[in-house]
Amino acid sequence: MPPLQPASITALRTQSEPLSFAIAPAISSDAFKSAHTRDLPHAKRWDDHWSIESRGFEGSALKRSAIQPSDRKVISLGTGRPTADYYPWDSMTTESMPPTLAANGLNYGSGIGSPHLLRFVTEHVEMMHQPRYSDWAVCLSCGSTSALDIIYRIFCNRGDTILTECYTYPGAVEGAGLQGIQVQGVCMDSEGLHPDGLDDILRNWDTSLASKPRVLYTIPTGQNPTGVTQSVARREQIYQIAETHDLIIIEDDPYYYLRLGMQSDDKPDGQGNGGDSVLTAIDRFQAQAVPSYLSIDRSGRVVRLDSTSKILAPGLRAGWVTASSQVINKFVAYQEVSTLGINGPTQLMLWKLLDETWGHEGFLLWLSDLSRRYQSRRDILLRACEKYLPRGLVSWNCPQYGMFLWLELDYRQHPLLRHHTTIQSDVKTFLVQVESRIVLKALEHGVQVTKGSLFSPSPECRRMLYIRLTYAAAPALDLSEGVKLLSDVLREEFSLEADMV
Amino acid sequence: MPPLQPASITALRTQSEPLSFAIAPAISSDAFKSAHTRDLPHAKRWDDHWSIESRGFEGSALKRSAIQPSDRKVISLGTGRPTADYYPWDSMTTESMPPTLAANGLNYGSGIGSPHLLRFVTEHVEMMHQPRYSDWAVCLSCGSTSALDIIYRIFCNRGDTILTECYTYPGAVEGAGLQGIQVQGVCMDSEGLHPDGLDDILRNWDTSLASKPRVLYTIPTGQNPTGVTQSVARREQIYQIAETHDLIIIEDDPYYYLRLGMQSDDKPDGQGNGGDSVLTAIDRFQAQAVPSYLSIDRSGRVVRLDSTSKILAPGLRAGWVTASSQVINKFVAYQEVSTLGINGPTQLMLWKLLDETWGHEGFLLWLSDLSRRYQSRRDILLRACEKYLPRGLVSWNCPQYGMFLWLELDYRQHPLLRHHTTIQSDVKTFLVQVESRIVLKALEHGVQVTKGSLFSPSPECRRMLYIRLTYAAAPALDLSEGVKLLSDVLREEFSLEADMV
Repeated sequence: MPPLQPASITALRTQSEPLSFAIAPAISSDAFKSAHTRDLPHAKRWDDHWSIESRGFEGSALKRSAIQPSDRKVISLGTGRPTADYYPWDSMTTESMPPTLAANGLNYGSGIGSPHLLRFVTEHVEMMHQPRYSDWAVCLSCGSTSALDIIYRIFCNRGDTILTECYTYPGAVEGAGLQGIQVQGVCMDSEGLHPDGLDDILRNWDTSLASKPRVLYTIPTGQNPTGVTQSVARREQIYQIAETHDLIIIEDDPYYYLRLGMQSDDKPDGQGNGGDSVLTAIDRFQAQAVPSYLSIDRSGRVVRLDSTSKILAPGLRAGWVTASSQVINKFVAYQEVSTLGINGPTQLMLWKLLDETWGHEGFLLWLSDLSRRYQSRRDILLRACEKYLPRGLVSWNCPQYGMFLWLELDYRQHPLLRHHTTIQSDVKTFLVQVESRIVLKALEHGVQVTKGSLFSPSPECRRMLYIRLTYAAAPALDLSEGVKLLSDVLREEFSLEADMV
Repeated sequence: MPPLQPASITALRTQSEPLSFAIAPAISSDAFKSAHTRDLPHAKRWDDHWSIESRGFEGSALKRSAIQPSDRKVISLGTGRPTADYYPWDSMTTESMPPTLAANGLNYGSGIGSPHLLRFVTEHVEMMHQPRYSDWAVCLSCGSTSALDIIYRIFCNRGDTILTECYTYPGAVEGAGLQGIQVQGVCMDSEGLHPDGLDDILRNWDTSLASKPRVLYTIPTGQNPTGVTQSVARREQIYQIAETHDLIIIEDDPYYYLRLGMQSDDKPDGQGNGGDSVLTAIDRFQAQAVPSYLSIDRSGRVVRLDSTSKILAPGLRAGWVTASSQVINKFVAYQEVSTLGINGPTQLMLWKLLDETWGHEGFLLWLSDLSRRYQSRRDILLRACEKYLPRGLVSWNCPQYGMFLWLELDYRQHPLLRHHTTIQSDVKTFLVQVESRIVLKALEHGVQVTKGSLFSPSPECRRMLYIRLTYAAAPALDLSEGVKLLSDVLREEFSLEADMV
């Protein structure tokens, strides 16, 4: 058989299914092979060649739970993907860029980032966080998931245990699991991770069973999935416990800039503060921003992860890590033998936008404006929840930061539990079934929501029933309809009258 | 002290050193902090918090050996960075891009790559390599260094040994070392890695000391640093040994497309074949390309790494991995909890260039043309070597692929060895000193070259004296002058008459 020629590729394409334009579709290269290659024999099985680390590892459950394309309209209240309307680039051109910079963006770069972008980010970090020790440092990253993978490698061995909120970002749990790191959840209240819970675990740790945790992973602001934000006092308490027990704190803070404030019923379009002057916006941001762990840190025990995914665009795969220079030197070394650091085109786009176009003031104004837009979306979702959801069954808090609303369902009201008390003996299995049914039915009704149990690293957390909603992804006009559809499903599952609130 | 304000940042910048426009400069964020922060106390020491993996790890030696900016002109024959003249983008614009695609490039993507780019790459792989089994698959990567880090994690445990050429890419050795993987070099001849050497090591492996190697890492084409290309027969022999001993073959093949052919003294500008028609170029590429391990593979034991770094632009941080779908599924899973795969802006640039602008024919024409340009540069360098280098001392082969020329120095001619035979007892230390002196003196004279010992994973290889040159980085007009400067240094070190050839 002669080698495949360009002409036959054209024919191949015309016979194939049209390409998907969905966000992150599930695809494989199988769709693009010729009929000839599909008829060949299969590869051998390589199961006995996997490393200890990779054996049994199958990737991200949250990603598998994302909407797959279909002809039906589905309103996504499920995946925390910012709407494309909020990306600050309508078009891009590099024609006006100095040739040396363009060459740098396309040539090999430093593992730490280009001087131009690193300067802007360093200045920004100092301005926002005012670190209290001198030898902190910043490194550009390939996004916070990549950064977290490296930070785990820097601090953790197989068999170690790290501590997290008892509901947390599944990517952090899966990344740890891949490296053979155990994850233990710490109980939470309305201010997030509970200091007493943290202290209890550390004080009563049985070192004969496993070595004492040395790393705390926390999402302190607009936490994923609960939406809660740790107060200043809460952060100080947790930091003190970290000092006592010598914990590294990984501060994963992608929602830090999405400051939504209180619910504003009288400003439904979220534009009520649109007349701010430049200086007011900056002052307000600095004065009202909740202090980060980085800004509390005196010992250099905090590793802060910032990301451009929620504030500029996720496809950039960019962020920055701030920590003591000891940690950053290690981090850069890891990037040098893996990703080689942030990619050039993204770096150029960020530098051109942040430093050359916006400057520090403009960046903060963008963040203020973006926050207002998310505030407006959050308020629409909250009003829809108040209007449609059965109040006796579902409860929630108003998120002050970020993009998530966490619904707690009082599962004890489920008719099967009210009438068949024997089920109590295996509530966990029962809850898994109810949760699956709700999410599947919701999808059939045309709204995607996310199971709370996906976020639970420790089995003991799974005796509750939660649903995570996001107001980031769907068109603003669809948010209310999405909640109404979910409400119908909940009323059906819990056998509530349609008019009962 | 009040928080840092944008106005003080402007002042800070005017007081600072101007930014470096060098390629991959050595920088840290220290340069961009305010005086206030530099006066604060230091972080605590965190030495006892490093993991087993990260303890002692300090990153890439090759990167540290790269030229740092200075006011002096230095001709780089050292680092294999393609000249910016050879990047196929003069300017970029996304204004004409369909909005859905632009949104995909900026939103979260699939860990495997976008359908649009994956289709093109899958077609290209089938056309170039014609795999002999059916369930191969392709995944876009964040460049081959990142891909290699993941492939090691998929197949190797701490304490395992992998086999490589006895001189090889230091990033591959450092990445393995980081993961606690031993690297054993296999002897080479003028066709690269030697099958008998490979077979000997595997047959005589003492499993009581370490588990038998299960992975071979090879750069089969235009090998870095030696420039040699394995013949078809050589590849078949090595593949057969891999079958016998059940080795995974990592085929790292970034120079596959840079096919230079024989030295062409009568066509100094390399443009002699410029009149090829489209079909001829494709036919020639397919007919004359050396068969890859992927194309020989029947079992699915080959993991092939392709990179855009040497053929389009290194800053893209992009490439693709081809292997059995079993391996690719693992690979995608790893990307899902680390980099999340290739970044969006690069993906858009590649799709627009490869699929929308060039098509398959255009891409192959680009590669043919690029090969001709490298051929011209190689020929300039070879002619300069013939003209200037002392032939009795230095020998080399004509590289058929890639960007490297490997000079072997007959160290026994060194005056200190000729006159003081006692030094023979510690030749290795002596060679290290000679090599360092040559490279340092060359830099003082204005030319950068790379020590051969940097590429040697096994100490037993270090009883020779090699220098690696590249014709990829320096302006073509400087190549000859660079060799002349090196020649002066060699003649001085070896006390040769200036006119002795």
